[in-house]
Amino acid sequence: MNKKQKMIDVALGRIPGDLAIVNARLLNVYTGEIQDNQSICTSGARIACVGPDVGHAIGCGTTVLDAAGATLIPGLIDGHAHVASLFTAAEFLRYAARGGTTAIVTETMEAYAVAGIAGVLDFLASLKDQPIKFFATAPAMVSTSRAAMGIDPADLDALLAQDEIIGLGESYWQAVLQNRDVFLPIYARTLAHGKVLEGHSAGARGSNLQAYAACGISSCHEPIKADEVLDRLRLGIYVMVREGSIRRDLAAIAGIKDMVVDTRRLILTTDGISPADLMEMGYMEYLVQKAIDCGFNPVTAVQMATLNVAAHFGLDDRIGGIAPGKFADLVLIPDPQTIKAMCVVSNGRIIARDGNLEVAPRKHVFAAASLNSIRISRTFGPSDFCLPCDAAGDTATVRVIEMVTDLVTREVRLDLPVAAGEIKADSTDDLVKIAAIDRTKNPGKCFTGLIKGFGIQSGAMACSAAWDTSCVIVVGADEKDMALCVNRIRDLRGGAVVCASGSVTAELGMPVFGLISELPLEALAARLRAIRQAAADLGVAFPDPLLTLIALTGAAIPFLRICEEGLVNFKDGRTVGLLA
Amino acid sequence: MNKKQKMIDVALGRIPGDLAIVNARLLNVYTGEIQDNQSICTSGARIACVGPDVGHAIGCGTTVLDAAGATLIPGLIDGHAHVASLFTAAEFLRYAARGGTTAIVTETMEAYAVAGIAGVLDFLASLKDQPIKFFATAPAMVSTSRAAMGIDPADLDALLAQDEIIGLGESYWQAVLQNRDVFLPIYARTLAHGKVLEGHSAGARGSNLQAYAACGISSCHEPIKADEVLDRLRLGIYVMVREGSIRRDLAAIAGIKDMVVDTRRLILTTDGISPADLMEMGYMEYLVQKAIDCGFNPVTAVQMATLNVAAHFGLDDRIGGIAPGKFADLVLIPDPQTIKAMCVVSNGRIIARDGNLEVAPRKHVFAAASLNSIRISRTFGPSDFCLPCDAAGDTATVRVIEMVTDLVTREVRLDLPVAAGEIKADSTDDLVKIAAIDRTKNPGKCFTGLIKGFGIQSGAMACSAAWDTSCVIVVGADEKDMALCVNRIRDLRGGAVVCASGSVTAELGMPVFGLISELPLEALAARLRAIRQAAADLGVAFPDPLLTLIALTGAAIPFLRICEEGLVNFKDGRTVGLLA
Repeated sequence: MNKKQKMIDVALGRIPGDLAIVNARLLNVYTGEIQDNQSICTSGARIACVGPDVGHAIGCGTTVLDAAGATLIPGLIDGHAHVASLFTAAEFLRYAARGGTTAIVTETMEAYAVAGIAGVLDFLASLKDQPIKFFATAPAMVSTSRAAMGIDPADLDALLAQDEIIGLGESYWQAVLQNRDVFLPIYARTLAHGKVLEGHSAGARGSNLQAYAACGISSCHEPIKADEVLDRLRLGIYVMVREGSIRRDLAAIAGIKDMVVDTRRLILTTDGISPADLMEMGYMEYLVQKAIDCGFNPVTAVQMATLNVAAHFGLDDRIGGIAPGKFADLVLIPDPQTIKAMCVVSNGRIIARDGNLEVAPRKHVFAAASLNSIRISRTFGPSDFCLPCDAAGDTATVRVIEMVTDLVTREVRLDLPVAAGEIKADSTDDLVKIAAIDRTKNPGKCFTGLIKGFGIQSGAMACSAAWDTSCVIVVGADEKDMALCVNRIRDLRGGAVVCASGSVTAELGMPVFGLISELPLEALAARLRAIRQAAADLGVAFPDPLLTLIALTGAAIPFLRICEEGLVNFKDGRTVGLLA
Repeated sequence: MNKKQKMIDVALGRIPGDLAIVNARLLNVYTGEIQDNQSICTSGARIACVGPDVGHAIGCGTTVLDAAGATLIPGLIDGHAHVASLFTAAEFLRYAARGGTTAIVTETMEAYAVAGIAGVLDFLASLKDQPIKFFATAPAMVSTSRAAMGIDPADLDALLAQDEIIGLGESYWQAVLQNRDVFLPIYARTLAHGKVLEGHSAGARGSNLQAYAACGISSCHEPIKADEVLDRLRLGIYVMVREGSIRRDLAAIAGIKDMVVDTRRLILTTDGISPADLMEMGYMEYLVQKAIDCGFNPVTAVQMATLNVAAHFGLDDRIGGIAPGKFADLVLIPDPQTIKAMCVVSNGRIIARDGNLEVAPRKHVFAAASLNSIRISRTFGPSDFCLPCDAAGDTATVRVIEMVTDLVTREVRLDLPVAAGEIKADSTDDLVKIAAIDRTKNPGKCFTGLIKGFGIQSGAMACSAAWDTSCVIVVGADEKDMALCVNRIRDLRGGAVVCASGSVTAELGMPVFGLISELPLEALAARLRAIRQAAADLGVAFPDPLLTLIALTGAAIPFLRICEEGLVNFKDGRTVGLLA
């Protein structure tokens, strides 16, 4: 008898179910009710029946859990995560799965940029057969590097053919409108597969926002103010309110609850979470609790992390609510206001109780290619970071990246002395060198520029996880330390390194794609703290120096960025050189 | 420049749009707001931009319509229609499209039962290139006739591969649970295509409703009381509140508005409409107005006929709301409480103003096979309707269909005299003969039974549009008139006929599939009135005698039904003979 036949027989009371949870309050995300005295019974991974009495489905062999009046909610869903970042899925899940999150939609661009479709498939394989569900989006590949811009159409089709690929990942609006010939065909292919286009409309307004919406995108996780949320909701865009390690926007946005009648297109998401935040705060349960604490109705808050997410991705036939035929992904919490998992059921199996994970996430053995993504063959030396200048005269006007916040930059132009055919920068004025070195597509291809306001007074720091590209990014006040950082990253097969006075002062190996450490999460968090401290010791005062560093290649953040091809002007998408 | 590029350029204000509607109130189905001073501008069939000012998209060549403060709502959608019934799409649309309906989802089982996939494809062709959009569901084919039960898997796959086929049509719960081996594979195929299963859970409760939901169905249009609506909404099922010519449930169900917080899964539908009702009352605009009159908030009422329907079918990426990139399907109404179309825009084109259709629906030329679906070759005579009995004795106990309402029947058992090997029925006791004659699969195959309470005192009436089967259904107090009816239907290539005393007293030819008249709607309605009167003249007191007649083969209505194979017991789905 197949699974579905069995489930129907359980619903009909002809054979006993597997797990019954009785005497619960049910937070019904479909009707918005909180229903007293409800029970559910599962058959395999699915819910067979839900109602005031499931006694007919309980028999010999049914595990019965008395909820004693506790509240049952659907398993929580993170609709926009970056799982190919820092940790393995197995380590991530040790903390992420215990609090009630049972499904995660992750981006894949990080793996694609450095390891192509084989890398994405290996990454997806690491998400399979885990205690909770993963879905993924195909990478659109907006990049500062023209070499990395736009996913290959054949790769896109191969990915979209997979069931767990439920959409196209974020594609930043400026780049899409600047490169319509690249992205509209990618959008058309995705829509033809019946899958959604994840948007990224940070700062877009008026006609730009309208034009971007007209492209067909159906979500955005970038609003940072309530009126930005409202602008997007009005256009039919699902707004993912972000509360994660990159930004925390929920408190600033919470006013939206009083501005719209209908919240069906509001979603909560992390947009990625750091090991420290995950361990300290928890995962989606933290977001739902915070939404409630910010004044959202508990039913609305739960819908924002369950049904609304599932509906956006067309997954509401299987997840996002508690109903017959849906996956048995359930969380028992004390009451609707208190999002603290007493028991987490995923695919019909109890995976956590009282904050303790009772199943072991599967450790994936990554392919050799995934573990060898730093393809730089040569050894770097200080001269690799010189700034040659064959212009006449003894000064040159150069473009300089100036830090405005820890993420936003702007272009400033400086007249710098030229000596012996080389531009001289003066680190005493907080002006230091920065270089982006491709490690995959044109391995070793390097562009060196200048950055002001990074705070680094001596030494250097580098990382192979530079956003949106396949670059190692390095910044330093000393070219020898810059070279040492890059060479050490090569030896580590990827990672983050801080050097001072010719020695490594902190490092983290990230051998998987040059993006992911295989350390236990606790050790990983300790290493990241050490890197932060080592960077601070060099004078970097940003809250997360590593984040600030790797974001400098990011294509979504204004205004002057860098990649191995040169400096990139965010406003027009053009790649330019150092000399103005 | 392709259409999408052009639309984006309009949104950006780089080229002028086609149609601008300015100075409108916008009923925003996404946020639930009513926004003052809004405008939209189209590009081709799509909306390019929406907002307080679309001046940048207006230029030379843009048609500008000043709404003068009138309210703009999305085009209305009927999510469950039976268009292959009585009228052609072209005639139907003369009345259906003028009131603001811009998309219709229709069943196709009627054409499939009598003309197979070729018939469905011809029917779908008749819906193409019309002023408004049609979508369709593939027929599940629940039937009282085993010969018609279950769509052929190859036909299903061929239909599901088509973009306009957005789900599997209604499959009645009893038959599904009784024939799981037939229907679960059909369900699995449909779900694998990412398309929805339309449900039909009339009267299902408790474990039966749970089991049916567990099968994967995601809608039901059969609740007739508010608590039935609630039961289904709680299970995550979209409830289509029916207000059409078969039944009018909206007033009885309206109390649901006070019972649930979240109405996102409530939908309004006709489930089919008669020519007379369509002409007198209108189409979906009537339903939305009635919902408002029944106390639904106008925004909720509009959502129930727009966004909620689109979301159910996964069409909300293109219809159901007013936003950039969506089809320009729009209705201008005086105010949110008054659903009276001042202007209807479909695919960016004004198709109706002030109740007058300004475009001509396309007349389809049906294939020869579709026009010759009555494959009965022989001529019927009175003896075809005798009830032979070779049992010993001078009486026989027979199963009789007894009318309980105009649609519901029950089985009664009667002892009837047997003479000369034939069972004798006495029409003075309102006991008459009924026969179902297959016209397609086993043409001429005939089963004759007995029916009580139909009211017919003399003559006979027949129709080739018998539900869920490929039967001609005939009922009569006189076997000669019964034969005359059947023979006349054959000559008409399908239709409805009433005969009395050896003459035809009323008739309607339905040459398309034996289901559809090609008459103008006004003439069609007049013919139907004449048939009703002729049936009343024979003693039939039901409000719609033809509907009562053709529903007798229906597989969804309790309790004793008929088809060419015999009597069918609704409770267990078994086919039985006349003799008990």
